Parts: sequence; C-alpha cells; structure tokens
Amino acid sequence: MSARELHLNAFLMGVGHHEAAWRHPRADPRALDEVAHFQHLARIAERGTFDSVFLADGVQIWGDVRHTAANRFEPITLLTAISQATERIGLIATASTGFSEPYNLARLFSSLDHISGGRAGWNIVTTAGDRSAQNFNREVNFDHAERYQRADEFLDVTTALWDSWEDDALVVDRESGVFADDAKVHEINHKGRFFSVRGPLNAVRAPQGRPLLVQAGSSEDGKEFASAWAEAVFTAHQAHGDATAFYADLKRRVTARGRDADDVKVLPGIVPVLGGTEAEARALAEELDGLIIPVRAVRQLTELIGVDLTDHPLDERLPEFPPVSQVNGAKSRFELVRDLAQRERLTLRQLLGRLGGGRGHQVVAGTPEQIADHVELWFTTGAADGFNVMAPLLPSGLEDFVDHVVPLLRARGLFRTEYTGRTLREHYGLPRPVSRYAAASLI
Amino acid sequence: MSARELHLNAFLMGVGHHEAAWRHPRADPRALDEVAHFQHLARIAERGTFDSVFLADGVQIWGDVRHTAANRFEPITLLTAISQATERIGLIATASTGFSEPYNLARLFSSLDHISGGRAGWNIVTTAGDRSAQNFNREVNFDHAERYQRADEFLDVTTALWDSWEDDALVVDRESGVFADDAKVHEINHKGRFFSVRGPLNAVRAPQGRPLLVQAGSSEDGKEFASAWAEAVFTAHQAHGDATAFYADLKRRVTARGRDADDVKVLPGIVPVLGGTEAEARALAEELDGLIIPVRAVRQLTELIGVDLTDHPLDERLPEFPPVSQVNGAKSRFELVRDLAQRERLTLRQLLGRLGGGRGHQVVAGTPEQIADHVELWFTTGAADGFNVMAPLLPSGLEDFVDHVVPLLRARGLFRTEYTGRTLREHYGLPRPVSRYAAASLI
Repeated sequence: MSARELHLNAFLMGVGHHEAAWRHPRADPRALDEVAHFQHLARIAERGTFDSVFLADGVQIWGDVRHTAANRFEPITLLTAISQATERIGLIATASTGFSEPYNLARLFSSLDHISGGRAGWNIVTTAGDRSAQNFNREVNFDHAERYQRADEFLDVTTALWDSWEDDALVVDRESGVFADDAKVHEINHKGRFFSVRGPLNAVRAPQGRPLLVQAGSSEDGKEFASAWAEAVFTAHQAHGDATAFYADLKRRVTARGRDADDVKVLPGIVPVLGGTEAEARALAEELDGLIIPVRAVRQLTELIGVDLTDHPLDERLPEFPPVSQVNGAKSRFELVRDLAQRERLTLRQLLGRLGGGRGHQVVAGTPEQIADHVELWFTTGAADGFNVMAPLLPSGLEDFVDHVVPLLRARGLFRTEYTGRTLREHYGLPRPVSRYAAASLI
Repeated sequence: MSARELHLNAFLMGVGHHEAAWRHPRADPRALDEVAHFQHLARIAERGTFDSVFLADGVQIWGDVRHTAANRFEPITLLTAISQATERIGLIATASTGFSEPYNLARLFSSLDHISGGRAGWNIVTTAGDRSAQNFNREVNFDHAERYQRADEFLDVTTALWDSWEDDALVVDRESGVFADDAKVHEINHKGRFFSVRGPLNAVRAPQGRPLLVQAGSSEDGKEFASAWAEAVFTAHQAHGDATAFYADLKRRVTARGRDADDVKVLPGIVPVLGGTEAEARALAEELDGLIIPVRAVRQLTELIGVDLTDHPLDERLPEFPPVSQVNGAKSRFELVRDLAQRERLTLRQLLGRLGGGRGHQVVAGTPEQIADHVELWFTTGAADGFNVMAPLLPSGLEDFVDHVVPLLRARGLFRTEYTGRTLREHYGLPRPVSRYAAASLI
C-alpha cells in the first residue's frame, strides 16, 4: 500500500471566507462579478496542486442584502468558465436536490464533466429554510427527513441517468449507418415517490462515469446519506475530539454499508489566517473581526441555525436553545453553535466574533509552520483525510497558503508535488464507477 | 436612419445540419463530444462577424439512437465554454419553459450573460411530446395551449427576476459597510397559476439587463407569444410567398402590441449547400441525401410532426393528414410538412429526401453568388431581417459560407465588415431593457 496522501480543496468564497472580507483593503469586492477573478483563484490553487476548487451555492439571497456580498455566479456555469482556464484541478459545485429536476441536473454535471475532461464534482445539498422554498412555488420547505428522502431518490435517478449510456455504447460506423449500439443505451424507467423518469440521458457517458459526489450534512440523516452516496465529505469541527469522533463514526457507517472506508474522504473546513509571526496572524484575524457588522451577522446566524436571534441584545448571554428536534435548519450546525455558546457562556456579540471567520468552521491563526502542524496533526490522528481550505481573504489568503504552507506539507511528504492523475476522481484516489447496466449485462 | 443591416446566426448542429452529416467523409462524428469542435465553429462564425451562434436543445433523445447522432452537450454550459474562446459573438441557447423552474433558468442565463460580458440569448421553447414529459414526472405532456400559458407566465417571472436588482443597486462602500442599496433590490412576489416566486434573484443585473429573447413557434399561440416577448424569431419557410406572409403578419402583431416592428428580427432558416458550380453543389446535396437511413428519418419525421408514419410504405403516397387541431406537436411544422406533401403529391421516401437536409428549413444548393442572391432577395423584399444559417456539414459548410458568401454580402453593403457593438443586443440593434422596478421608481 502506498503512503496515505493528503487532499486539499480550495473553497472559493467570493473575495474571502471571512464574512467581512469585502470591507478589507486587501480584497476587491467588485471582483465578485468578474469571471477572471475566479479563474485567477483556480489557477493559484492549481499551482498548489490542490485536488479541487469548490463553489458553494444557494437559491436565495443569503443574509442581509444591505450589508452582505450577496451576489454570486451560478456555480456550474462559473466552473465551466474556470475549466477553460485550468488543466488539471477538480471543479466541485453545490447544487440542491430540493428545487431541481434530476434530468436537468444530471445533464448539467455530465456536460461539465465532458467539457472539463473529467473534473466535475457535485456537492449535494438538500437546502433548508422557507426562504428558498418561496422561490420555488412553496410557502414552507419540505421538513428535514423529507428533504433527505427526496435527496436519496434524486441520487437513485441521477446515477442511473449517468449510467444509462454504457461506456462503449458509441459505434459510429459511417458505412453501416450505425451510430450507437441501442442495446447499450438504457431507459431507466424510474418510478418513485418524488420522481418518475424514463431516460435515457441524451448524452454519452461522461469521462468520470459520474461526477465525484460530495456531501456536507452532519445530522443523523446527513451522515446516513453520506455513507450511502458521498465520496468526499465537507464537515465543520471546532475541536479535535469532535473531529475524530465524527471521522470514526462516518467511516464505520461507510463500512457497514459494504463500502471501503478509504472510498470516502473526510475534509473538515479550516480557515487559515496566516502571518509571518503568530502575532501578525492574530492581528489580521482581529482586524477582520472588527469589520463585522453586527446586524448583518445576527441575521446570518439566524439563517444558519434556524433560531431567530434578531431581537436578542448583543451584550447579553445567549438564551437557552430549543431542542434540536424543533429545528428545521442545518441541524449539525445548530448543535455546533449551541455547544460553543453554552460551553463558553458567550454573549451574542462574542459568538458573532467566533463565527465571523468561518461560519462554524475552525479558524486557525498562525505562521505557516503552525498551520502545517495543525494539518499534519489532524491528518495523522484520525481527524481528517484532508482539508477544505477557506482562505479568509481572496486571492491573498489562498496565495499565502499555496506559497508558504503547501511547500511545508510537500517537504513533510504529506502532499503531492505534481498531479499524477487527470480526473478529479484520480486526484482523490477514487475509482471510476462502472455503469450499473454494464454490470448487469455480465451476469 | 442608417441603412438596414442583415443579421446572421450560425446554427451549430453537431457535425452538420443534414441528418446524415455524420456519415459524410467531411465530418468527424467523434467531434460531437469535443468542446474544442464547438469552440472552433464559433471562432469561424466570429471571423465572419456573425451576430450569434445558436445551440438547439431537447430534454430527451431525438430520433432513433441506433442511427442518430443523439448525444449532445447541455447548451448553456457549452456556450459558457465557447464564451472563453471568443470575444464578440452572441451565444444563444435553447431552454424549455416546460420542465425547468424560472428561478433556476433565470440564474443560468444571468450567469452566462455575466461570464460572456453581455452575449447571452435564450431561444424559448415550450417542448412538445410525451417522451420529454416522461423524463419529468409526467406520462403525458401539457397540451399546446397550456404549454404557451405556462411559457407566458414563465417569462413574467424570469424577466422580473432579471430586473430584481436595479442597475445601480451596488454601493460597495467599505467604510460604512453598505454593500447594496436594499431599496434597489426587489422581491418580485409573483403568485400565478403555474409559479409562485418571491425573489429577488441572487445575482446583480446582467450586462444586457436580460438575455436576448428568441423564439421559434409559428403556430397561432406561438406567434402571439413571439409578438409579446421575442426579439428575434427563428422560422422555417420553403417558399418566398409564405415567408413574406409570415413576416408581415408577425410585424403586424408586434406593432399591435405597441412595440416597434424593428425590435423583432425575423430570421428564416437556410441550409446553404455550397459548390464552386451549381452542379457541384447539387452533387453534394444528393450525396448527403443518399446517406439518409429511411427507418431513422421516418422516426424523426414522426417526432417532428406528431403523426405516426412508421408503418407507412416508403414508396406510397402519403395519407391524408389529421386536422391540425388534433396534433399536439409543433403545429406550424406539421402544416409546413402537410402542405409540401400534398402540394407535390410526395411519397414518403420523396418527403424524407426533401426534409433530410433541413427538417423543414429551406435547402438552397448553389454557388456563393447564388446563395448571396437568395439572401439579398429575401432580405430586401420583406421576407427576412436575416438568416439562421444551417450548414449541412460542420465545420466545412460554415467555413465555406464565411469565406465565400459573407464577402459577397459585405461587398454588396448588406452585412457588417467588423463588429461595432460588444453585446448580443448591440449586434442585433436592440435596446437594453430598463428594469421594471427602476421605471416604477421614477413615477
């Protein structure tokens, strides 16, 4: 067995992951609407031989439009544009199972995978909150359990559609006029609770067979879904102990389903705030936190955890939180915030400062050595297979990570010095799925 | 008033518009899955200062998968990739109002318009046929009238979403922390028969305000829809008299709605089969027709007109057609085919030959001079504002048109010698729409 390899994903969040990044002099907020900005970021990550870049997404405006950099490109089109400015790096887009049709979304990801030469990944989200539902003909969103039931069926359908053309279905014999072997192009004839889809897809099988499947739900439903479908998991932990417990639990669920534990990569988020000295890094973190606008942050927190805190006085201790069963938002994020607030007896203002850098993800401020130590510790002690790197400022924070942290990780033998694969699956060391129809035909 | 200007759109249909193109030695059928092929085509059209390129689309496999080049990229992603390989040419994608959500489709086109710097266009289709519906949870498609009612409401919603951020909504004042003027970002609060959408869109207004709206329905419902919404109309005519009648009728409907007749460009399809001599051109046309596979062509015809002809003997005269009111397919295409078959008393095989080159669009085989004469005649006699150019073979047929026909059109003062605008709307000489919310705020 070859040495275990670290995996790094660059989370491209506008002009920086810190919620106040756009106010900082090292960010250019007008770049949010410039495709060249995102292509530049992806090229930096590719120079650092990252496995992939990732674009989050939502189907509503997040936060308070007055104080939030709320505008965004649709991610599959933006990644398509990025694919034309890069050669190797993987391209992961969030898309929701709540408000799309499987046939449409299967086509978009298949097309991205074809266009990029096998670099597409899908971060599967179910989308909490009524505000999104109200853009899609519903007053109230599906509840948490139903969202995951729908997601599960959505994956049944999309994976079948991606398999519907076997790899060798194309014949292209000019002489006989046979373009495809129709015995290798399959109707999927799905009839379920949420969807009825006949198929086949109107595209040949994509270079990766299916896009890499990524997932970030950490609730009970989320972990079950991840163990069934995910090949990489984005997750948020503040403490090493929570991370190792999550890691072990998820791998156990994966093997319980008969899958190989290595076939799901666990990538906690990390917000690396880098400085030449630790003091310099802490000063940058404080400078960014000082730019947070409380009214905006409270609204975002309310959206994030599904508990309304807009009328709570900033300098008073946080109230008792409701039971998680009453929360129809992202349950795992709710629990993380609740535990942090209660453990440290935080006021609302203190909590906002703790969350502003990474919305629940761990902020690590320090020198490149300190960041590399953190990465190595988590990677070698059962807390992570890699990291979802969330630079607080973009592009500068990503440049700093690539120029100063990546060389240390390489020198320690933890991270690749060049790409050995061509596709996103190859970067993550994951197999290319065989079409279910091809497998059946072998019996 | 400046001289009236011809408009040319390059319809990029795989490796050629002729249904048997992929069997011809001058086409490379493997190019169908190569993004570089389509980028190359767009660069040829851009060299010819075409207004735009266009990708058709459907949400099912068209035709018989055994004999049809049925695989295709999803067009919005493919045009995004093309945008990175071109600078000026417009990018028009078909998308259906039947099987998408307005919020999702509005985002995709907004994103394409941002990424391309204002070059996006949407060819609006309603999608006939049960086979497509069966990929979207329905056994039977909506009927013709309902499809257009849904399309009408779909446009109400998407145009409102594109308007939901006024052009000057962004403030981006780092000092005060005001990112956007929330009085200029509007909920649309649409509640209709088919859709309920709160808005706003989560993207700033696109360079063109809204993508160019294109439409191709020629039925009564289709023409009414076009007169309300379309800015360019793709249409199919075999005869000059039919074309002038359609042109006059459509412009009349447009002005009856209080719009300027010039604000809708009428672009009939033309399949130019080019040769150094007329005999050479006719030989190429015959060579292509000889490659048609009858069983495949019959199935495509059946899909096109919504009348099942699969059991009709090839060399027998066509039967009486049912009344158009019983047809739930593309009504105008049905009428065109019926009239052609009855006027010329065609057998099924003869009809297939007449349609194989352009699926109802006019095939003109001749020298560059003859093609230019045809274009000039139709343009100057009230039949066309320009043409949807459907090269029978790609790239060679498009190259021939750009290298040999375009120079003649330029020499005659009919067509631009260089781009004067940056956006697709500017190429077509169409205004940039003001946000409906900005207009209201002026009262």
